[in-house]
Amino acid sequence: MTICIRKLVDCVMKRLDNRGYDQLRHVAIIANYYSHGDGSCFVKFGNTHVICSATIDRNVPLFLRGSNSGWITAEYGMLPGAGSERIKREASGGKQSGRTHEIQRLISRSLRSVVDLSMLDQKQIKIDCDVIQADGGTRTASITGAFVAMYLACKKIDRNVGMINDSVVAVSCGIVDGTPLLDINYSEDSNADVDANFVMSKTGIIEVQACGEKRPFTEDELQKLMDLAKSARETLISIQNNALGI
Amino acid sequence: MTICIRKLVDCVMKRLDNRGYDQLRHVAIIANYYSHGDGSCFVKFGNTHVICSATIDRNVPLFLRGSNSGWITAEYGMLPGAGSERIKREASGGKQSGRTHEIQRLISRSLRSVVDLSMLDQKQIKIDCDVIQADGGTRTASITGAFVAMYLACKKIDRNVGMINDSVVAVSCGIVDGTPLLDINYSEDSNADVDANFVMSKTGIIEVQACGEKRPFTEDELQKLMDLAKSARETLISIQNNALGI
Amino acid sequence: MTICIRKLVDCVMKRLDNRGYDQLRHVAIIANYYSHGDGSCFVKFGNTHVICSATIDRNVPLFLRGSNSGWITAEYGMLPGAGSERIKREASGGKQSGRTHEIQRLISRSLRSVVDLSMLDQKQIKIDCDVIQADGGTRTASITGAFVAMYLACKKIDRNVGMINDSVVAVSCGIVDGTPLLDINYSEDSNADVDANFVMSKTGIIEVQACGEKRPFTEDELQKLMDLAKSARETLISIQNNALGI
Amino acid sequence: MTICIRKLVDCVMKRLDNRGYDQLRHVAIIANYYSHGDGSCFVKFGNTHVICSATIDRNVPLFLRGSNSGWITAEYGMLPGAGSERIKREASGGKQSGRTHEIQRLISRSLRSVVDLSMLDQKQIKIDCDVIQADGGTRTASITGAFVAMYLACKKIDRNVGMINDSVVAVSCGIVDGTPLLDINYSEDSNADVDANFVMSKTGIIEVQACGEKRPFTEDELQKLMDLAKSARETLISIQNNALGI
Amino acid sequence: MTICIRKLVDCVMKRLDNRGYDQLRHVAIIANYYSHGDGSCFVKFGNTHVICSATIDRNVPLFLRGSNSGWITAEYGMLPGAGSERIKREASGGKQSGRTHEIQRLISRSLRSVVDLSMLDQKQIKIDCDVIQADGGTRTASITGAFVAMYLACKKIDRNVGMINDSVVAVSCGIVDGTPLLDINYSEDSNADVDANFVMSKTGIIEVQACGEKRPFTEDELQKLMDLAKSARETLISIQNNALGI
Amino acid sequence: MTICIRKLVDCVMKRLDNRGYDQLRHVAIIANYYSHGDGSCFVKFGNTHVICSATIDRNVPLFLRGSNSGWITAEYGMLPGAGSERIKREASGGKQSGRTHEIQRLISRSLRSVVDLSMLDQKQIKIDCDVIQADGGTRTASITGAFVAMYLACKKIDRNVGMINDSVVAVSCGIVDGTPLLDINYSEDSNADVDANFVMSKTGIIEVQACGEKRPFTEDELQKLMDLAKSARETLISIQNNALGI
Repeated sequence: MTICIRKLVDCVMKRLDNRGYDQLRHVAIIANYYSHGDGSCFVKFGNTHVICSATIDRNVPLFLRGSNSGWITAEYGMLPGAGSERIKREASGGKQSGRTHEIQRLISRSLRSVVDLSMLDQKQIKIDCDVIQADGGTRTASITGAFVAMYLACKKIDRNVGMINDSVVAVSCGIVDGTPLLDINYSEDSNADVDANFVMSKTGIIEVQACGEKRPFTEDELQKLMDLAKSARETLISIQNNALGI
Repeated sequence: MTICIRKLVDCVMKRLDNRGYDQLRHVAIIANYYSHGDGSCFVKFGNTHVICSATIDRNVPLFLRGSNSGWITAEYGMLPGAGSERIKREASGGKQSGRTHEIQRLISRSLRSVVDLSMLDQKQIKIDCDVIQADGGTRTASITGAFVAMYLACKKIDRNVGMINDSVVAVSCGIVDGTPLLDINYSEDSNADVDANFVMSKTGIIEVQACGEKRPFTEDELQKLMDLAKSARETLISIQNNALGI
Repeated sequence: MTICIRKLVDCVMKRLDNRGYDQLRHVAIIANYYSHGDGSCFVKFGNTHVICSATIDRNVPLFLRGSNSGWITAEYGMLPGAGSERIKREASGGKQSGRTHEIQRLISRSLRSVVDLSMLDQKQIKIDCDVIQADGGTRTASITGAFVAMYLACKKIDRNVGMINDSVVAVSCGIVDGTPLLDINYSEDSNADVDANFVMSKTGIIEVQACGEKRPFTEDELQKLMDLAKSARETLISIQNNALGI
Repeated sequence: MTICIRKLVDCVMKRLDNRGYDQLRHVAIIANYYSHGDGSCFVKFGNTHVICSATIDRNVPLFLRGSNSGWITAEYGMLPGAGSERIKREASGGKQSGRTHEIQRLISRSLRSVVDLSMLDQKQIKIDCDVIQADGGTRTASITGAFVAMYLACKKIDRNVGMINDSVVAVSCGIVDGTPLLDINYSEDSNADVDANFVMSKTGIIEVQACGEKRPFTEDELQKLMDLAKSARETLISIQNNALGI
Repeated sequence: MTICIRKLVDCVMKRLDNRGYDQLRHVAIIANYYSHGDGSCFVKFGNTHVICSATIDRNVPLFLRGSNSGWITAEYGMLPGAGSERIKREASGGKQSGRTHEIQRLISRSLRSVVDLSMLDQKQIKIDCDVIQADGGTRTASITGAFVAMYLACKKIDRNVGMINDSVVAVSCGIVDGTPLLDINYSEDSNADVDANFVMSKTGIIEVQACGEKRPFTEDELQKLMDLAKSARETLISIQNNALGI
Repeated sequence: MTICIRKLVDCVMKRLDNRGYDQLRHVAIIANYYSHGDGSCFVKFGNTHVICSATIDRNVPLFLRGSNSGWITAEYGMLPGAGSERIKREASGGKQSGRTHEIQRLISRSLRSVVDLSMLDQKQIKIDCDVIQADGGTRTASITGAFVAMYLACKKIDRNVGMINDSVVAVSCGIVDGTPLLDINYSEDSNADVDANFVMSKTGIIEVQACGEKRPFTEDELQKLMDLAKSARETLISIQNNALGI
């Protein structure tokens, strides 16, 4: 029974920042972070801070030329000084890491899943997610903010934002010392046996990436992580909506 | 009830290759595909053919120098002619695609999750997965074969293969026209609303990547895909074991 | 006579943001922007915002190995959404632009000119200047902030900061419609006939880059631009010192 | 006199695989290795195995746009695990080696020499030669197979294959311990004083690349190597023709 | 007073090549170094030798397509053996250094400042400056030669060369052991406290890059360096004009 | 009979520069082109001009570390303005062309074939061949000059140059309009049916690269080209020796 497990969890572990196991960090979104551009926001999950910005591009990628479909794509980066150790600047190294590629693809797919691309007026929306400060959960914060930036850009194309069918929010969870935790920060993530990123719409799931790098996990564990993620869904959507004024 | 659902499924859809919705393609593994090298196999899931080969490297990556840990990493590639459309050769383009990076990281993480790296004698095992022919599920076939190649290389380091704690097999599933299908091929994958890759150990789950690019999905749908994957687990492990003679 | 010219200038031109021709934008520096790392600040010149962060690296570059000299180097980047038009992400393009290289070299040289490298304990200090928002003068804002970040890192090496001999501040000036202007913003810069970047120490000049891309300029014009820059020097140094608490 | 020399040769050296000095390894070609694509084959010279695949591209390279000429080009790669030592994956290193470039150019030139490019219907044929297993002579096996793949693609453009004027076969020879040998394998190649690759048409020579990296060679030695190559020409052409059913 | 200072200078320092502090090295320009091409020259400042060559390209860069403006751009390189230590070949390393980028941009800007781009018949002129031998001042020698190559190319577009409004010459100066020196060579440059590059037109200044990497400098010092540069202006222009026969 | 053929040839074709079919262009070598460095020369074959320069490097490549063998390697480049059409600068494009790789490998192999690498005192000699002006035969001119630069560098290591066993000269020949021609220039090369590069030692052959891109060729044609090349061998060696003063 879920309730018992939750109680048990409360007993066995205290989070460094005194959060409950099922408590989000302080999450905030400031829409229109830039006065210029087609849509932007600043999003924070605790000490993880991301600037998301959307640009409407009149050119769709080559493979869509001549079709009537628009496109949505995302790029992701971290400031070299964003984390506790300096991260090599990808621009000077000459290529993006595998991790960056993986995250960019996740953000892009997630956003596309709730948009009717045929209603984008044959335009491409490019989302840039740049991590200013990193303390775990940068990809899920990026997705949560990217939705806001995309929404604002879509509004420029169609005042009714008719092409967006649903919300997109994301959060990362993990099992640390046997305890499933919501919205893990960097130090929790480093010690997690299992971590999972959940991208969710208002009522459905958009993407699950659950990974047991240290050991295989059980279906039950996955379920608990998913329950934690789902418990945060409404809060995250309402933070987005408040920021967007809808 | 699962049984009902399965029956229902059988009614609504026929797969192009006449498989049942919960039927694997013809899966085969030939161990020691190369007479040289430290471990290799040829793995096929239907028309998806992959050569996996393992190399023991005396040098661990920089970040592990001085530790007593070994390492396992994987690279992935496709022959330009492997699929129905020619795929641009990554070597001549000068970089690997985001998709390639994503897959390489998945294979690497999956293998590491069942190995005690401290027992690798401070060596690195590099696994190469090269897709000779592609018909969907190349990453899951690669993982399934990579385990065999890795096992053979580990055996060279320790005859008892004491560092490997579990098996690793993988399969991709998808929901096509509303029907959950096991081991989808390329044409099914192209039409899937939801697709999910499951990496599994003997009793647990190592990684789940479930993605609804066309639309969000439900927990129930994810469960059905996971049930399909689990139903193939034993078969895949026994094909590996037969190939390895264990 | 300078005074006359200044009067004349006031007559002929009004700046868009109502500043006087010899007036800085709002300049502010927040030291220790990050709680982690070896030294950082947030610096703004009006709508130009830069995060500067310093990292102490125990390895000097190859050409200094075996010498007793430390080193100081800087990298520079802009968020793709920082300016009014999206700037292509250099990391995904695979190389830094010529402009980026030019700026990185300028920042690095400027900082090194006031530091006794032999007192750096054979360490390298890497400064990252990342432009979060761009409205002209990003390189001079970066230098002004980079000094603060470097100072904090030097303090970690030597509490007395004995290796730093002088301050480093910078400002860009330009001649727009015949009028020399201090601290030009992006729209002024775009219309400038001549623009010049001045890097200054407390009493001397560290670097002058004056450029007349639209037309050659006179010595007298250069002098007026330099006078403007010099008039801002004290203010900039005191903003740095306040931020550093010295 | 040639006959004497051959006798002499037989006396002084035994090849590791018991072949005569003028004997090919087992050579086989399987046409239409892929059911998809525009033309493909699997070619083996002993333990050297290559997959060749041809793709018809509607776009000729830039320098031929507007002309009425088609084009033929080839790319070459090796699986990292193909040889006895792991070969670094060129795609992850970010560039193709000089050796790869050299081979690609050789294959391309060789094929173009027998094709009337003006009869290609302004199309480009791209040939991919991927070495699955390497035991010496990979470039000559690639050429021999590439011709078959190209032939099949040409047949798609013109059922009568009128643009192909001749056959193209290739074989490598070398002088090992003073003895000229036909179709040398990797271990023979490593010990060769002189090695030479011969690309031949039905009656003529298309390319000779003879190289004495260890020592200069004589005209007489070159002649002997060429005689060996010519002695294999008919066999190779008939293996191609059998595979093509012509 | 300038005269006094000059006298003083003569007293305190002897240049290695016995030049006076205000004396150019032997400067010579051979126009039309190549019989082919659209404009070229060989330029020497002492042992610094540069080949400059101009090519008229019918395509302007993307950002000018559709405008009526032409463009001028420059590239710069050094032979690996040009200097006393071998310089790594940038082509094999896969990228141009920051220094090369900085120089290319300087040459390009300098040339554009004297050309009416709208009179270039919507063409682009590409200037290549290749340093054959390097002994300091390669960028200023390149600019001085590049003007000649550009002039010849412009003459091909318009016999009256109406688009060029002014001359462009450049020279580097430096303060060595406290003495301002004109046209410093490599060994002087290596020991300079301050060095400055001056790009000049007939009566104005096009670009000043003054840099005190070792220590800040004074306005007075900058003035002295500028006076030295100006004193060489006429000589350099007349050498250009002689080479051009104008 | 050779003599007859020669007569016939004289009848049928006149070379643009009035040379006989078996006549070299004006070939000259200036040793020690640079006063600095370890060995250099300027070599011209008519209007093909190349600067060759050798550098002794104390580090052998990785694969030779720990062995007692030295190494010889070569790099090749062309100035963008060297030929009649501008050649894209490889450094700005970010990679060397396949042609460049092919040539670099040819030069390297050729030089190594006459050197006892174990006598190089575990050093590496790097040869740079940079084409200043290109009119055909740049690779063979490069080889001929590279030998001179290498010789001078070897002399620095061992006054007796005991590690060099033989000379290396090279020349390119071609069949144009049915006539075999020695030392073909660019315009002849463009029209050649067959072209062949011959690298020769005093008495032997080091490398033959004969290529019939337009059509296959006969053994007899190859023989005639080789006879032409051999007829120039002595002249080329004596030009080298004169330049070296041996």
